[in-house]
Order: sequence, then C-alpha cells, then structure tokens
Amino acid sequence: MVLDRLQRQLDGTAAVVGPGANLRYLTGFTGERDRALALLLTEEDCIAVTAAGYETQVRQEMGLTSVSTVPTNDPVSIGERIADLLHQRDSHTVFVDEELPMGIGRSIAGDLQWELVDGRDIFDPLRRVKTAAERAALRRSAAVADEVRAATIEIGADVVGLTEAALARRIHAMLVERGGAGPAFPIVVASGPHGAAPLSHRHGNRLIRSGEPVVLDFGTIVDGYASDQTSTVVFDGTPPSEFPAAFAAVEAALDAGVGAVRPGRDAAELDEIVRNELDERGFRDAFTTGTGHGIGLRAHEPPTIGPDADDVLEPGMAITIEPGIYLPERFGVRLETVVIVTDKGGESINDVHREWRLAD
Amino acid sequence: MVLDRLQRQLDGTAAVVGPGANLRYLTGFTGERDRALALLLTEEDCIAVTAAGYETQVRQEMGLTSVSTVPTNDPVSIGERIADLLHQRDSHTVFVDEELPMGIGRSIAGDLQWELVDGRDIFDPLRRVKTAAERAALRRSAAVADEVRAATIEIGADVVGLTEAALARRIHAMLVERGGAGPAFPIVVASGPHGAAPLSHRHGNRLIRSGEPVVLDFGTIVDGYASDQTSTVVFDGTPPSEFPAAFAAVEAALDAGVGAVRPGRDAAELDEIVRNELDERGFRDAFTTGTGHGIGLRAHEPPTIGPDADDVLEPGMAITIEPGIYLPERFGVRLETVVIVTDKGGESINDVHREWRLAD
Repeated sequence: MVLDRLQRQLDGTAAVVGPGANLRYLTGFTGERDRALALLLTEEDCIAVTAAGYETQVRQEMGLTSVSTVPTNDPVSIGERIADLLHQRDSHTVFVDEELPMGIGRSIAGDLQWELVDGRDIFDPLRRVKTAAERAALRRSAAVADEVRAATIEIGADVVGLTEAALARRIHAMLVERGGAGPAFPIVVASGPHGAAPLSHRHGNRLIRSGEPVVLDFGTIVDGYASDQTSTVVFDGTPPSEFPAAFAAVEAALDAGVGAVRPGRDAAELDEIVRNELDERGFRDAFTTGTGHGIGLRAHEPPTIGPDADDVLEPGMAITIEPGIYLPERFGVRLETVVIVTDKGGESINDVHREWRLAD
Repeated sequence: MVLDRLQRQLDGTAAVVGPGANLRYLTGFTGERDRALALLLTEEDCIAVTAAGYETQVRQEMGLTSVSTVPTNDPVSIGERIADLLHQRDSHTVFVDEELPMGIGRSIAGDLQWELVDGRDIFDPLRRVKTAAERAALRRSAAVADEVRAATIEIGADVVGLTEAALARRIHAMLVERGGAGPAFPIVVASGPHGAAPLSHRHGNRLIRSGEPVVLDFGTIVDGYASDQTSTVVFDGTPPSEFPAAFAAVEAALDAGVGAVRPGRDAAELDEIVRNELDERGFRDAFTTGTGHGIGLRAHEPPTIGPDADDVLEPGMAITIEPGIYLPERFGVRLETVVIVTDKGGESINDVHREWRLAD
C-alpha cells in the first residue's frame, strides 16, 4: 500500500499532508480543499488532525484509526496540534505538502525547532507512474473532454458574435452535464490575437469574430483525474493567410511528439523533437512554451516536458504533448493530447481534432 | 484606497498576500489560485513577485509598477525572492495571508529571521464591511442562486429516482448557464438521513426517494462575490410526521434571526435568539451548528455568528442566517438567506423558499 511505502521512506523524518491531491492519493479522502484537516506521517504513526465535527467523516473516508481532534474548524489550531505531536519526537525534518493551507503550515513553523522542507521531493515520485486504475480514470476524463470539444465545434458559425466568456460558460456547463466535476483548470477560449498569449490569457469579454482562429484548451475531472486537450478552430470565414501553414506545422509537431514518446526517452529530447519540427517548418521562436507536463490527480504535475527538463519517461507516465505557434498580436495555434507511456512507445488517449475548417 | 490604508497600518512590519480573496480585494487581480505570484507589502513598498512569463499580466491587472520576476513558475523561487527582499529590512514580523500557497510560505520561513504571524489579523477587518459595489455584487450573486433554486424546484417529482450527485450536477450546470462562475462551495444535496449531517455531507450516490426532505444548499460566484442559500423541499410524497413541525420551527427561527439583525447586536446574542426559537418549539439540541457566517469574496468569511462569537454587527456587513434541525438517521431541515446589515436593521437579499410541499 502506498501509504505504508511512504512511511517506510521517512526514516526518522515526518511529513504533513493537507487536503488535496496527495491526501487523496494516500488515503482516498475526497473532501474539499478548505477543510481544516491535515495528516501527520512518521514511520510509526499516521494521525489525522481535524475539527471534532469532521471526526466521523475522516475516520470513515480515510480508514484511519488515529484521529486527533481540535474544537473548531480553525487552521491555526490544527497546526498547533501537529506542532505538539512533532515536539514529542526526536528528528527535526518535516516534509510539507505544497497544498497544505498556509494557516496550518505557518502554525507548525511558528514554534519551530523543526525544518520544513519541500514535500514534493517525497510526494511527487509516488504519483509519477500511474496504475491501471489511474490510467482508466484518465481515459474516462479524456473522453468527457473530447465529447465536449466535439459538441462545442458543432455549435459552428453561431460561435461568431459570442464573447469568449460566454463560450467558456457553455463549455463549463457541458463538462458538468456529461459527468465531469467542472473544469480541471480555467477554460481557455482565446480568439484572434488572444491566442498568442498562451501563458496568461484564459477567456474574456472579447467577441469572437469571423475568420479568427480560436484556441480551445480545457479539461475536466472524472473520478478525481484530470483531462487536458486543445484544439484550434476557425468557426466561420477565412483565417489569416499564414494560418493554414501554421496549423499544419503544429499538427506535424504533435505527431512527431506523440511518435517519439517511449520509455527511456529524455523529456528534454522529446521537447527538442517537437521544437525542431516547428523550426524546420519556418516557425522558429514562435513556440514560446514547453512541450507538455504530467497529468493525473492534478491537471499539471511532474514531469515537465521542456528544454530544461531532466526527467526520463517511464512506462505508466501520463503526459501532455501540446505544441503551439504564437504570433503576437495576430493569432495562436495549439493542439494537445494526453499520451500514456507504454512499454514500447506512447498512446494518445484523446481523439485529436485535426480539421481547423468546419464541415458545412 | 484600501491598499494605501493597509500599508499605513503596517508600521514597520510586512505582509505577504497570495493569489486569492485578499489579493483581489487589494489589487483587483482575478488570476487563478495556483499562479506563482505573491505581493509583498511594507509601509513604503508594494512589490509583486511572479514568474517572468506573467509580468505583463500582473502589471496590467494589478496596476503595479514594482514587479520582481523569477525565471520559472515555481513557488519556491517566489518565496526565496520574498525572503531576499525581507532580509534587506530591519523589522522581523510578517503577516502571512492564509491563502498564500505553502510552497511560497515555506520558502519564506525556510531562512527565517522573521516571525510569520496570522495575516487574518490585518486582512479580515478590511473585508468585514462591504462597500455599495460589493453589496450590489452580493445581490447579483444571490439572484443567480435564487433563480437556480427556483428552476431546481420546478423539476418537481422527476427528482425522485435521481442520485444526489446527478441533481448536484444539474444545479452546477444551471449556475454556470445563468452567469455564475461555478459553485461557490461544494453543492449540498442531502436527502433523507443525509440531511442530518450538515457539516460533512455534500452529495453522494444515494437515490432520492419519495417522501424524503431534501436539503439544497448552494451558491455561486458573480463578479467575484459569493452567494449561499438553502431550501428544504419534499419533491414528492409524504414526509415523516415530525417534518412539518420541524420545518415551521426552522422558518420561525429564520424570521426571528433576520428580524433581530441590527447594528450593535452581538453575534452571540443573534445566535441565541435563533437557537431559543428552536428550543421553545421543542427542538432543543437539534440545531448542532452555528447560526451563520460572513460572506463576500469568499462564501465563508468573518464574522462568525455562533454561541462563542465575539463579533458585533456593523452596517454594511453581509452575513448568513441558517437555522436547522438535524435529527440523526432521520432527516434534516435548513433554511438560509444572506442578510445585509443596514443602518437600522437587516435586509434579507435572498428570496427564501418557504414551501416544502411542491405545488401540483
């Protein structure tokens, strides 16, 4: 069991996990992020600290026998209780989950003989390689996102004249109606020049116009697992003259990337293969992001697929491949799929939409 | 301006704000919670620290001239940069926003000459009294929640046979379609005995049956501001024999609570008025929660309206009044509205649904 395995690794140190992806991974707890709750782990003990009102739920959902309760739903009390429990011990290093609320973490640190160190060092490796059950959940999540993308594209020319925000609302509602738990990250509907700001633009009150490429990047959560896919579509009219070649280059880069996934491949090398494809087709310097990222309980998680990555692909990893061309003040193109690393290569689990022109 | 006012209060100390309600309140920044970004405040300076890729967006949205950038979107780098900036100063106290990501906060604490103290002490008082613009946004948010509640009740007897989760999905989609940014907190659809677990139950795979009271507690976000309202409905059939009297008692307690809101009223006294109403009607000990909470940029914020509260109501505060009767293993009843404290009393801004029986 993964919790036992982690505890054995602690070797005299401790770890504190907050409500979020790591807690779900370790215990199955699905409660909300702002729940006053933390899990203290040492080699010997696994103790949930929570408010008295949540004790029954925590015992049931997490299957834990050690629960220490504080009177009220206050993060400071939770942190102080954890600090008390830590003070009874000898060691002085505690790995802290990045998702632990600051109110809890600060209270632990407040009375500090202990060194709070980066929990990613012990939590991230656990979640990198997905089990068969996790891969199945990723596929179900990808299927919902793909269905909603297809339904969005079916809206067709009626999208022209909507604001980006209105289309994002339609997408959000469809994700939920089809069984997703809402967007896995803020929905990107980036029309015309907005498509060229892949890092900062989500959606806004800009009206989508005829002839504009629209970058649609969204995913949902199914059974806790995220999806993340991107298409670029011209809902009506004739796009800028450079657009068809840019789209073809991105499609070629996507295929090169998916084809290059295999166990043992350096993530930086995979990024280079994708980047070269765009460079050779005349779009040097237009791909201003990395190639992709891991995906699982969170839409963005390790490994990183980029020029400076030092990860190596392993069977069971799930990563995105998302090449793009970003031409400031003109438009953007991006295509994205999730790829599961298999024993021999990679399998794209999204049904990538390869036609920027809508069928009549 | 609120940012200036806060800076003047700092008096030699510093404050660090993460992406979330306080940052939005102070600067208008609406970006997502997991953005690598923090704002460092001292009496003299206001410096945003973020990844280089977000500099333009941060400058534009926050209207700040001092932006310090780190190369990558990594919380540890952000925290280390803030620690560097703090080390140039003399004082040794920093107020830390509860919503600051732990990855950033831990890095500040990592190299600690500074004492990290509870930021709620300085941030919460700023947000307690709502401006006219904030009150207008709360009303718009309440209106969307009320519309969706009405539409949910209109589904009528067809709700019987749905799972709680399926009905929650319908509610979520309707909130988004009507202009909300999604649920303000996990949607509660608590049927039959589930209604008696007000602290822990949200919705699950239980089928809603004929004759069961169903507690519907949800809100959304409009222009950044939350709504939160509850109704209790029997979608079909005849409820347990004690239910009508319980419903009438909760309705009376709600009215007593709304009627008792006025500036200068102790929050604990308001709680007692609501609680007495239930006690006198034979439901002593069945009201196992507090009476309410503040609402604004977050669905739950100070003040607390409960037996141990030490807050006093002021004009412009927005609070919930949410009496309930919780009978373990049988059913629950709750009604809830948001009340804005006026100069003379209180104004309920939700259109409370007072009929548990559906019209034929």
